Amino acid sequence: MKKIITISREFGSGGRFIGEELAKKLGFAFYDKDIIAQVAKETGLSEKYIEKRGEYAPTKNILSYSFIGRDAQGSSVDDMIYRAQRNIIRDIAEKGNCVIVGRCADYILRNRDDVLNVFIHGNEPEKCKRIMELYEKTEKEALTLMKDTDKKRSINYAYHTEQKWGVSRNYALCLNSSILGYEMCIKIIKEAIK
Amino acid sequence: MKKIITISREFGSGGRFIGEELAKKLGFAFYDKDIIAQVAKETGLSEKYIEKRGEYAPTKNILSYSFIGRDAQGSSVDDMIYRAQRNIIRDIAEKGNCVIVGRCADYILRNRDDVLNVFIHGNEPEKCKRIMELYEKTEKEALTLMKDTDKKRSINYAYHTEQKWGVSRNYALCLNSSILGYEMCIKIIKEAIK
Repeated sequence: MKKIITISREFGSGGRFIGEELAKKLGFAFYDKDIIAQVAKETGLSEKYIEKRGEYAPTKNILSYSFIGRDAQGSSVDDMIYRAQRNIIRDIAEKGNCVIVGRCADYILRNRDDVLNVFIHGNEPEKCKRIMELYEKTEKEALTLMKDTDKKRSINYAYHTEQKWGVSRNYALCLNSSILGYEMCIKIIKEAIK
Repeated sequence: MKKIITISREFGSGGRFIGEELAKKLGFAFYDKDIIAQVAKETGLSEKYIEKRGEYAPTKNILSYSFIGRDAQGSSVDDMIYRAQRNIIRDIAEKGNCVIVGRCADYILRNRDDVLNVFIHGNEPEKCKRIMELYEKTEKEALTLMKDTDKKRSINYAYHTEQKWGVSRNYALCLNSSILGYEMCIKIIKEAIK
């Protein structure tokens, strides 16, 4: 039985919702915004800044990112946030029975054998519709936001993990929520941890 | 309810076994070697040749492949095999209720909405062990055969589909059979077609 479920997700795929519902059904702790608050406490940075940078840095390209805003040890603020996130995620995992969304948790916890890594993705029309509704965007805005967010998540993941985001081999389960539906995704993950 | 399940699989992941067991449990037709026999009949080529080329051509690189052995219409033997496979897979799909392993069936049937595409992958040690047992190979031989076969499948898939093999977005479900186990994979796919 796996005690920790990590969920990586495309923007608009409902991965966060699936994770939260799954945690409720299993009676597991759910970590998403909590991690932000803890990183803020540990680093002294604002929650808003961490929310923006924690999954989406480096924002432009890795080369320029490498030389900007580094401290005396050669670390950037983004590296500092990542290190704080990593320590917090490791502590959370020690407590067991939880669902963790995003933040390279799959990679951070790769040496544990009680973790099930899940990737939730979906079809463009369904993801776009969800973003339009949730964030009150036009179709064009939703599409731009979707592509931009996924691109940033993908770069962030590659930078910290040296793995490629969304490639099936990094996850025990990859589910297309547009084809399967959210309820079926929850059901499958519940089944898979047994 | 999906009526057609396509299974793409890494060599040694047990994807073929999973597909066959799944078909038995669902009372679905199972297509693998049958397709080879039909392609042989249609093209006049030997079954042995088709087995070798049907999923594994082009073998070296796409550029050299493009200029060798083409007929008057500019088609290679491999293109001819692919076209025959495509027609047979489309006919099979028309009959419904079946599991089809490999042969770009996911891509060939992409315009149907009664198809569930699955990718089965696994961890190297488990896949290697299976290949050693099934094909009576040493560890070194099994590892070479595994990498070589997957490379060929990947090139073949890219050539015919212009998609990347094993990238989660091409499939409704990607399952790691080493982590989940074969029985769980079968259970999850059975659940997912509902």
